[in-house]
Amino acid sequence: MPRVAIDVLLKRELLDPQGRATERALPGLGYDGVSDVRIGKHLELDVDAVGEALDALVEAMCAGFLTNPVVETYRWRVIADDERADAPATR
Amino acid sequence: MPRVAIDVLLKRELLDPQGRATERALPGLGYDGVSDVRIGKHLELDVDAVGEALDALVEAMCAGFLTNPVVETYRWRVIADDERADAPATR
Repeated sequence: MPRVAIDVLLKRELLDPQGRATERALPGLGYDGVSDVRIGKHLELDVDAVGEALDALVEAMCAGFLTNPVVETYRWRVIADDERADAPATR
Repeated sequence: MPRVAIDVLLKRELLDPQGRATERALPGLGYDGVSDVRIGKHLELDVDAVGEALDALVEAMCAGFLTNPVVETYRWRVIADDERADAPATR
């Protein structure tokens, strides 16, 4: 069953207060050279569909429920097991 | 300047209430066949570093500030401009 990763961010022209606050905090913590920080949602989920049915279901979920198309954009992809953000190998 | 995407999720063995609630809501909205939903953070940021310096800076930020290593895991990668979740082409 494909595992789908969905990334959601505020539209680029909108202020992202969480990203801005994070960006401003970084130099004081010793992390220099970081700019244009944007922070949103990351989802991973198993979808019991393939091909066009997968595309249609994920697009419908993203546009209709998981994101707010008025202020957010998203991007999704099918990921392998070792690409999961919670893969045991990460830590 | 490399643009870095960082995905953060709760560790796999921990309950993710937001993911669970989303998963339970989907069938009632007409979206069937979705399981094991996990929801976390997605960050995108420009980093003025390359090679080992980039790796070291991103790892240090992730482990020291952007995530809570006690309960979360993360994965990061350098992305192209057309891989941004807020790329104008997405919508």
